[in-house]
Amino acid sequence: MTRIGVFGCGRIGRMHALNIASHPRTELVSVFDVIEEAARETARVTGAKVASSIEAIVDDHQIDAVLIASPTDTHVDLMTLAAKAGKAVLCEKPIDLDMDRVKSCWAEIASLDPVVMIGFNRRFDPTFQELERRLSSGAIGKLEQLAITSRDPAPPPAAYIKASGGLFRDMTIHDFDLARYFAGDIVEVHATGANLVEPEIEALGDIDSAMITMRTVSGALVHISNSRRAIYGYDQRIEAFGESGMLQAGNQRDTSLSFWGSAGTDIKDPIMDFFIERYTPAYHAEIDHFIDCIEKGTKPIVGFQDGLEALRLADAALKSLRTGQTVKLD
Amino acid sequence: MTRIGVFGCGRIGRMHALNIASHPRTELVSVFDVIEEAARETARVTGAKVASSIEAIVDDHQIDAVLIASPTDTHVDLMTLAAKAGKAVLCEKPIDLDMDRVKSCWAEIASLDPVVMIGFNRRFDPTFQELERRLSSGAIGKLEQLAITSRDPAPPPAAYIKASGGLFRDMTIHDFDLARYFAGDIVEVHATGANLVEPEIEALGDIDSAMITMRTVSGALVHISNSRRAIYGYDQRIEAFGESGMLQAGNQRDTSLSFWGSAGTDIKDPIMDFFIERYTPAYHAEIDHFIDCIEKGTKPIVGFQDGLEALRLADAALKSLRTGQTVKLD
Amino acid sequence: MTRIGVFGCGRIGRMHALNIASHPRTELVSVFDVIEEAARETARVTGAKVASSIEAIVDDHQIDAVLIASPTDTHVDLMTLAAKAGKAVLCEKPIDLDMDRVKSCWAEIASLDPVVMIGFNRRFDPTFQELERRLSSGAIGKLEQLAITSRDPAPPPAAYIKASGGLFRDMTIHDFDLARYFAGDIVEVHATGANLVEPEIEALGDIDSAMITMRTVSGALVHISNSRRAIYGYDQRIEAFGESGMLQAGNQRDTSLSFWGSAGTDIKDPIMDFFIERYTPAYHAEIDHFIDCIEKGTKPIVGFQDGLEALRLADAALKSLRTGQTVKLD
Amino acid sequence: MTRIGVFGCGRIGRMHALNIASHPRTELVSVFDVIEEAARETARVTGAKVASSIEAIVDDHQIDAVLIASPTDTHVDLMTLAAKAGKAVLCEKPIDLDMDRVKSCWAEIASLDPVVMIGFNRRFDPTFQELERRLSSGAIGKLEQLAITSRDPAPPPAAYIKASGGLFRDMTIHDFDLARYFAGDIVEVHATGANLVEPEIEALGDIDSAMITMRTVSGALVHISNSRRAIYGYDQRIEAFGESGMLQAGNQRDTSLSFWGSAGTDIKDPIMDFFIERYTPAYHAEIDHFIDCIEKGTKPIVGFQDGLEALRLADAALKSLRTGQTVKLD
Repeated sequence: MTRIGVFGCGRIGRMHALNIASHPRTELVSVFDVIEEAARETARVTGAKVASSIEAIVDDHQIDAVLIASPTDTHVDLMTLAAKAGKAVLCEKPIDLDMDRVKSCWAEIASLDPVVMIGFNRRFDPTFQELERRLSSGAIGKLEQLAITSRDPAPPPAAYIKASGGLFRDMTIHDFDLARYFAGDIVEVHATGANLVEPEIEALGDIDSAMITMRTVSGALVHISNSRRAIYGYDQRIEAFGESGMLQAGNQRDTSLSFWGSAGTDIKDPIMDFFIERYTPAYHAEIDHFIDCIEKGTKPIVGFQDGLEALRLADAALKSLRTGQTVKLD
Repeated sequence: MTRIGVFGCGRIGRMHALNIASHPRTELVSVFDVIEEAARETARVTGAKVASSIEAIVDDHQIDAVLIASPTDTHVDLMTLAAKAGKAVLCEKPIDLDMDRVKSCWAEIASLDPVVMIGFNRRFDPTFQELERRLSSGAIGKLEQLAITSRDPAPPPAAYIKASGGLFRDMTIHDFDLARYFAGDIVEVHATGANLVEPEIEALGDIDSAMITMRTVSGALVHISNSRRAIYGYDQRIEAFGESGMLQAGNQRDTSLSFWGSAGTDIKDPIMDFFIERYTPAYHAEIDHFIDCIEKGTKPIVGFQDGLEALRLADAALKSLRTGQTVKLD
Repeated sequence: MTRIGVFGCGRIGRMHALNIASHPRTELVSVFDVIEEAARETARVTGAKVASSIEAIVDDHQIDAVLIASPTDTHVDLMTLAAKAGKAVLCEKPIDLDMDRVKSCWAEIASLDPVVMIGFNRRFDPTFQELERRLSSGAIGKLEQLAITSRDPAPPPAAYIKASGGLFRDMTIHDFDLARYFAGDIVEVHATGANLVEPEIEALGDIDSAMITMRTVSGALVHISNSRRAIYGYDQRIEAFGESGMLQAGNQRDTSLSFWGSAGTDIKDPIMDFFIERYTPAYHAEIDHFIDCIEKGTKPIVGFQDGLEALRLADAALKSLRTGQTVKLD
Repeated sequence: MTRIGVFGCGRIGRMHALNIASHPRTELVSVFDVIEEAARETARVTGAKVASSIEAIVDDHQIDAVLIASPTDTHVDLMTLAAKAGKAVLCEKPIDLDMDRVKSCWAEIASLDPVVMIGFNRRFDPTFQELERRLSSGAIGKLEQLAITSRDPAPPPAAYIKASGGLFRDMTIHDFDLARYFAGDIVEVHATGANLVEPEIEALGDIDSAMITMRTVSGALVHISNSRRAIYGYDQRIEAFGESGMLQAGNQRDTSLSFWGSAGTDIKDPIMDFFIERYTPAYHAEIDHFIDCIEKGTKPIVGFQDGLEALRLADAALKSLRTGQTVKLD
């Protein structure tokens, strides 16, 4: 049994805590949140203890690993503490909004060769996993074009936007990571953005819509389309085009129903909305993978460097957005 | 150039006349209808002559072939006259509502070995033709189950029902012919019917809904589902299930558009409605085939016997409907 | 916590035991199988005890309910024992292959007003549950035609066929129950069968393919299409046609991938195969419902009478198959 | 009857000639090609005359309009001659590869206010026409993102590439025009290109793959994805995303067949391939529209300026490709 502590008991932390508590090969030992009520509630539904302090988890020799789902600006410190305490770390994305802090974090813990996994949940989606298998097995030959459509159902509140680091670092960062997962390292980024959805977002100096083009080391072209609002739901699609075919990963639904009426035909049900629902199997597979790495001492398929690279692409996109220039990555 | 005369200038006759007039290898010579105004209008749009009488067409030595689209009860007489005059005949379905008249008609003209083709338009639908090619080429191996869904968009007027000969002889007869086309000759028929759509149809002693099960010589099972009303349009589907796969022929649309909204996703446009629209390419291919047979002296893929067999199945279904018994055909 | 004992540790019993063991509101107390090794293995993976005898479960006052997944011919005795011992019962389908035994079983326990639920798992499939909600809410108005396509991926071994009671009592019984669930009680049954798939099945006097037509009290027509083999997988589809629209419940897949190549386009992944995979969420929901009924003292949506009615339809279909006559039910 | 002369009897010119010859409201008078054999063959199949020279058409007072399907570098001269002779002009895309020639051409004929229509056939595709109607009618509210996927089945021969003016001016120019048709005028263009398909194309200094991002006056973002080779056929799709929904125009097929087998399920037939087949109805509608404009004296929906604007976008894309900079259009 891997014994785990959880930092952060918000929506996502609570979900992780529940998944850990019900996992056959893990034990949720204790949870911590600066908002004690949140920690208490999560403890209640999972049967875990409420940790009195961060140290109470970090210093607990019975705890093998920690999951970090606290606010982004606390990730680096908690990861450093945990890594130094010899604990495996599963940290929610992004590592941090500041590349320098991310780099110095790694500089500080790298020598410990810690098990660090970043919570890019989409890599663990069964459909995307199968897509990756097909690409690796040469189902479409050489990958030439990758198109990722990623649209949220509705814009988040202003408070969230303020702390988010902007569209690229908060939302697109998932797509940047998927682009690397499917198409490999990126050498060129161009980004275009717009404010079409929510005036408040513009007022905060952020964008709500974007189109990004990238080029990979292998020469493939990548397109990302983002919006903070899709009235038909959480739009998550990927198209991989290659020399011998095309693979499409479509949206998903809870049912296989279709309605035929006078207004339209073959009307499908709404797509799964929102990430907690759409990526439920992915979150479970993510914990599985984390436990496997700890038990077998293997490296996560998405480690610290992947978190750093995704942030690097977000920064490059931001630079391109401001200059109109294609940004080259060395 | 094959020179053709047309009997009957109603909706379907007029359409045939237009197809013939615009066909590169035919000339529409003259048209006849007891309602002279109808004939005059069809002549106007096609540039053909109005024939003063039935004989004016039958006795015209310049005319090679006739298309019979007049009321059902006139088919046998016109076919007999035309065949005796040495003309090729394309006759709308059904040949007649009375099996005895159909048989004696054939007894009278068989010795002339006439070119007689029955207007089962669906056999010429490009999708159904391709389905037939796939079945013949063994795409699904031995055919085991065939399911035909055939539903009209809305019930016809009472006057039409009165003269129709009932659901089986008027509407299902197309499905009986398709069943024979795809699955071969039938040895067993069971029919169930209901009045669910239009009280007036029940008042006229007819049914508006039906489910039919048949067994073929080869042992395959066939299902037909009929309704006189489908609010979503003219529902025309076929499913062929075999030992090595399944082929489905779906409904068709004018566009490839799909709409995603808050009410539903992937909403397709309405399906093609009604037979004139859905089977436009089929009607053209039907004329092509008729001309080919005349020019090359080959037999139509759907001849007099096919018209007779379809009626025989309709009569068997009617008997089964009344007795509740499976009717065996010798 | 509802404390449960399980009879029968074969494939399906073992699955139920695992679902019960991992259910938050139940405790799997003990399991029994005449093959002790099977019981021991199931006990091992679930942490339950191995019951030394049937009585060890029936007489255990700590056990509130039993799940019966033993061979069909033991269902009636076990259900009777359990009901008399005051335990709630979830019994796999069919109750028994002999209508007389089923009736006398009920005669013996009815007065105890036991909680008896029959394991018609498909009623609990999320898509079929949603279909039922839509029908009840009038999404398609009055139901006029219901078509159930139910085909197994491959025929079972001869040994299974021998004890199965035949296609109708073993396989179609699920479809008979769904027909009643969606369309209400049945007044007329006609069945046609064939041997197209597996000669061994014919040798055993059973059929491997069938088409059934039924009429409901409400006047709706129902079609069932069965085959013991579908090379493309476990084919489970339902089409509900009504006065104001049509609802289709399609097959389901593990991924939303589609491949476009030179051989074909929009190629979907294989469908879920077989019932354990396809109906996983249904089996979980089935246990949930059973627990709800026990906790709240409510009646299961699928009780003893539903099990009896499904068998009655199977017997009627068998009679129709032998006589060719439509069988009327009173 | 509008009397028409055709310049250029290659594949596309011959197709136009046949459409004109069979059009109820036009007469194909004469055809010209520098390769006399080509002209003779087209004349043979259409019943038109072979014009002895360009002048023989331009000076023929019986001719009301000309269709220009000759090599691109002859378009401007022929258009000028025809316009000065008072004839309506339908000119294949592009007007010319050199913006200066295009501008001076217009400077020379503008004062004549000629009926000039450019052959952007896709605007006349029934599905794209319906898409335009839906957008105009507000089906998705304000358009925010437009994605055009346009991939040819296979790369053209080197000789074609040499004279083509490059991917943007030859192939993408259709997509640039569609972008303006659906999303309005463009203010910003960024292009990325690659050589992934055909080394010969790279050797000729052209690219075979591209991704383009544009911004419209209205603020919408536009993405274009191009490839000179799609092994699954002529990939022609459009996605329009807006504040109240999304519209997708999918690929099209000759049949509505779908195959279910052990290798995959719901396998559709190949998509229509290539432009002559995919856009057959569009080419007919294009001629219809041209005739309507001549008869009614109305302006074509796609005139000289649209041809010029599309070329301007192609030039801007080329500049962006070379500089990596987003190019602003005034």
